[in-house]
Amino acid sequence: MRNVFHDQLDGIFEDLASICGQVEVAVAQATEALLGADATLAEEVISKDSSIDQAREKVEDSAFALLSLQAPVAGDLRVVVAALRMVSDLERMGDLSVHVAKIARLRMPRNAVPEAVRPTIARMAEVAEDMVRRTAEIIRTRDVDAADMLRADDDEMDKLRRGSFTELLSKDWAHGVEAAVDLALLGRYYERIADHSVSVANRVVFVVTGESPL
Amino acid sequence: MRNVFHDQLDGIFEDLASICGQVEVAVAQATEALLGADATLAEEVISKDSSIDQAREKVEDSAFALLSLQAPVAGDLRVVVAALRMVSDLERMGDLSVHVAKIARLRMPRNAVPEAVRPTIARMAEVAEDMVRRTAEIIRTRDVDAADMLRADDDEMDKLRRGSFTELLSKDWAHGVEAAVDLALLGRYYERIADHSVSVANRVVFVVTGESPL
Repeated sequence: MRNVFHDQLDGIFEDLASICGQVEVAVAQATEALLGADATLAEEVISKDSSIDQAREKVEDSAFALLSLQAPVAGDLRVVVAALRMVSDLERMGDLSVHVAKIARLRMPRNAVPEAVRPTIARMAEVAEDMVRRTAEIIRTRDVDAADMLRADDDEMDKLRRGSFTELLSKDWAHGVEAAVDLALLGRYYERIADHSVSVANRVVFVVTGESPL
Repeated sequence: MRNVFHDQLDGIFEDLASICGQVEVAVAQATEALLGADATLAEEVISKDSSIDQAREKVEDSAFALLSLQAPVAGDLRVVVAALRMVSDLERMGDLSVHVAKIARLRMPRNAVPEAVRPTIARMAEVAEDMVRRTAEIIRTRDVDAADMLRADDDEMDKLRRGSFTELLSKDWAHGVEAAVDLALLGRYYERIADHSVSVANRVVFVVTGESPL
């Protein structure tokens, strides 16, 4: 039977899905700023991060209100704490998008990404963005199977990242130290965005099934 | 007046301080493995991380038990949730030590850190380790002033990291791409360890004063 607790919890999950949507835009715009050396867009990603932070605070306040007023136990309690963790993950994904935008800004008016490694970065960004988009959907639909599929994408991200290291540490690397360092750090940021996506999706699985996927 | 809630909460904080002590050892040993190209020590850091993960689970279980059985509200509720967040930070600091140990392992039998940048890495590691040591102490003593001082150290870490970028992106950099990438990532890992230390200390301030430092 539905009750106040579950209605309020639904509200929190709607907010989480909406924050995930904001993160999706941040990742997409940070990548566009990076690959297009677009200063305006980089600034936009950096300045819009505060609205993700504010949305996080709103979710935290709602979760605390729910814990205080309803004093849920057992499974319900763990679901609310899972929501608090999801919002931390989402905020961190926003921060990582800002890191990408800041690398873009640091190299302006030059493009931070040398032509030869654009495909690798573009593919990493595409995988990350797609994972964030699907994570928002998973929060909305609580689709456990979709969450399982997300982990397969994370494996692709790990492969891409390993591939980028092979590329930048090979003898044929001709783009200098700065581009190599940028590529290594960008790879790290996109990888972390993907990790946090999987973490959020895993918490949805926990919310639905009561078990955390391994 | 003391009660069951506060006794159990004290137990959780003792566990947090003990986990922070384990993290301190992990950071110190990872650095020693890195600077000394010590394979055995690197493996030890990597394998011991599971005991930090287990200690995290224990704290989470205790926190959930406390929330379920005592149903704290308002300030007490936020303190328990703060403890859950602190243990997430601490676990992450353990993971970052593993990342340092893995870079050390990857370059064996060579030393991952070229002679010329050893002072920078050694200093970063020293600052990180000292911050973790003091964070354990802050959890134990709930010393708000010490937490404020920790933020000053974090500023030094940021300066060191910027300095390392100036170093590796200068025209005089003669150690090749691999060492530059290692240095950039190691800098990132130590910086994140410091960030999480500050985050843990800030939560202690919140627990004591009811206010989060900005």
